[in-house]
Amino acid sequence: MRVLGIDCGTECTGYGVVELRADGTLFCCAFGAIRLSPRQPMAARLAAISSCLAAIIAEHQPDHVAIEDVFYAANVKSAIKLGQARGVAMLAASCVGLSVAEYAPLAIKSAVVGYGRAEKHQVQQMVMRLLRLNHAPEPADAADALALAICHLHTAATKERQQKHRQRTAAR
Amino acid sequence: MRVLGIDCGTECTGYGVVELRADGTLFCCAFGAIRLSPRQPMAARLAAISSCLAAIIAEHQPDHVAIEDVFYAANVKSAIKLGQARGVAMLAASCVGLSVAEYAPLAIKSAVVGYGRAEKHQVQQMVMRLLRLNHAPEPADAADALALAICHLHTAATKERQQKHRQRTAAR
Repeated sequence: MRVLGIDCGTECTGYGVVELRADGTLFCCAFGAIRLSPRQPMAARLAAISSCLAAIIAEHQPDHVAIEDVFYAANVKSAIKLGQARGVAMLAASCVGLSVAEYAPLAIKSAVVGYGRAEKHQVQQMVMRLLRLNHAPEPADAADALALAICHLHTAATKERQQKHRQRTAAR
Repeated sequence: MRVLGIDCGTECTGYGVVELRADGTLFCCAFGAIRLSPRQPMAARLAAISSCLAAIIAEHQPDHVAIEDVFYAANVKSAIKLGQARGVAMLAASCVGLSVAEYAPLAIKSAVVGYGRAEKHQVQQMVMRLLRLNHAPEPADAADALALAICHLHTAATKERQQKHRQRTAAR
C-alpha cells in the first residue's frame, strides 16, 4: 500500500509518499515541499498547489491520501487560508478517485514518535529512523507529510489485523 | 463585461452571472445554487462544486469572478470548511485564466442596497429590482452571488471612470 501525506499550507505545502512493503517495512518513495511566494495572488498559489499535487499523484500513484485534521488557527483569516489549501489538496485526490483520510495532530505524533505532544525536530528524527533515511527530512513540512503517510499506514495495518481477528473469531 | 459572483459554502454554493451592457444596464444571465448533502464526504462535495463551477464558467464565459472576503466565522472548523469551498472556487477561476476579486460583506451590501448592514431579504429585493427580475432570486445564496457580481461591475465601472478622468487631466 502506498500513501501520499500532504501537509497543507498556502506558503509551503509539504508532501511525502510512503509505501508499506510486503515484508512489513516502510519505504520512502518521495518527499518535498511546494513553496509559494506570499506576494503571488492566492488564486495563482492555489493553482500551483493543484498542478504540483496532480503531478505527484500521477508519478507515484498512491492508493490513499492523508491530510491533517485542523482544530486550531491563530485567527479566522489564517483558518480560511489553510482551508483553501486543504480544499485544493482534497480536490486533487478526489479528482482521480482517491479517498482522503484526516488525522488529528495528536494521532500523527503518537503514531510516529509515540508521544502526542512531540516537537517538530522529534518528528523529523523519528521519520528519518522509521524510513531509514540518511538525513532528517527537510523542510519540517515534508517531515510532517511523511509522518501523516506513516500514520495512515499504521492505522490501515491495525484495521486490517482487527478485521482478520474478527473474521477468525466469527469462523470458529 | 460579464461577471460570475460565487457565494461559497460546503452545503450550498450560490452563483450568479451578471452582464453590464453597452447602454449601462445590468442583465441577469443566470443564477442558482449548488446544493450538497452534509452526509457526503467533504472531498466529494468539493469535487461537485468544482465540476459545477467549471460547467457554469464554460457556458456563460464570464470575464471576471467575484467572491466574498470573509472576516468572521463561528469557529475554526467552520472557517476551515468555508476556506475549502473558497479554495475550490478560486481554483475553478484560476484554471481558465480568470482573475478573482474579493469584496467585504459591507462593500457588497453598500453597492446593492446602499446600506452596509442590510438584511438578507433587502439584498434579495434590491437584486430583483436592479436586474428587473419578476421574483426575488432564491435561495438567498444565489441573491448574494448576484449581489457580488453587481458589486464588482459597479467597482469596475467606477475604476474605469476614474482612469478616464486621470487620462483627460494628464492630457490637458
